[in-house]
Amino acid sequence: MSSPRISFSGGRIGGSCVSSITTLCGEGLLPVDGVTVQVNGVPSVPDPIWTLAGVISNLRYTTGREVADLQRTQSSLARPEATCASLIPIRKSPIWWGSPQDERRAIYEERSRHTTIGIKYLPHIARRLHHSRDIGQPFEFLTWFEFAPEHESMYVNLLEELRSTEEWCYVDREVDIRMVWEASVAA
Amino acid sequence: MSSPRISFSGGRIGGSCVSSITTLCGEGLLPVDGVTVQVNGVPSVPDPIWTLAGVISNLRYTTGREVADLQRTQSSLARPEATCASLIPIRKSPIWWGSPQDERRAIYEERSRHTTIGIKYLPHIARRLHHSRDIGQPFEFLTWFEFAPEHESMYVNLLEELRSTEEWCYVDREVDIRMVWEASVAA
Repeated sequence: MSSPRISFSGGRIGGSCVSSITTLCGEGLLPVDGVTVQVNGVPSVPDPIWTLAGVISNLRYTTGREVADLQRTQSSLARPEATCASLIPIRKSPIWWGSPQDERRAIYEERSRHTTIGIKYLPHIARRLHHSRDIGQPFEFLTWFEFAPEHESMYVNLLEELRSTEEWCYVDREVDIRMVWEASVAA
Repeated sequence: MSSPRISFSGGRIGGSCVSSITTLCGEGLLPVDGVTVQVNGVPSVPDPIWTLAGVISNLRYTTGREVADLQRTQSSLARPEATCASLIPIRKSPIWWGSPQDERRAIYEERSRHTTIGIKYLPHIARRLHHSRDIGQPFEFLTWFEFAPEHESMYVNLLEELRSTEEWCYVDREVDIRMVWEASVAA
């Protein structure tokens, strides 16, 4: 059972309308007007300006207790009211990847509270993580968020909290793509 | 910096001479006479019967203390005396992958002693792990071993120890390919 591969293609048109692309660190992305989300290459996108892909994979840091906390509060993608979307591609430094699992876990959760911070913003901010490092992609993680317009300031707070953590010291490339999403991505 | 992709192609000829292919569980592999190891698709292999690929990626369970223990004792690939090689492709069950990180770690090391067992056989049995799950491969891990002919019984013991662990209850496909390797794979 292989992991589903999700692609995000930016182009002149797309399933969503891009409102901003902000480069937080490292190299940016070319401007696009729309982003189309594909599952295993369907639908095909003609002439994308860029395509970022990732797979939905197993959890890498989350404990059983944290999974239970998440499952109690999280919401699914494709809620009708969640017409705002955002894609945050990030890459981490070689120092991060060279660290052993227990050290990365300690930075991720015990010191940066990544999961704990995310849970505070549930169920309003729904998200799905895509892993890209092992498939030869320019970014290593693509996180897709969906929320209603009235929760945009909450989303901004979530990003500010995460970006102020020790974990983010290891992020060496990050772009923030905001969209208005008419027909939300299929969950 | 993307992960190097290593391919193992089985065919009528190859960089190594296959002495046996044993299916431990699940579907087997077609018989081949030789296996060629490629890094990022080089060299090209004409008409392979099968090709298995994986990426060299970050550690998923190993702690800093275990890394130090490994580094103190492990040997590199491509030792001139290590003319025996073995490739063990495995796949784990959906129950494994659906478990949270702390539960998988507990099975992997606290209860099955995966790293501890491996360390006992160092430096004689050198190995390299390749991750295949996220790149749409039929197997999820490809472990490549190299050892001198006089250490073959030690290698058999290593496999027997690992296969008797709780971790191996989650392995639902496993093939064991043994080879004689004239020019050892580049490390």
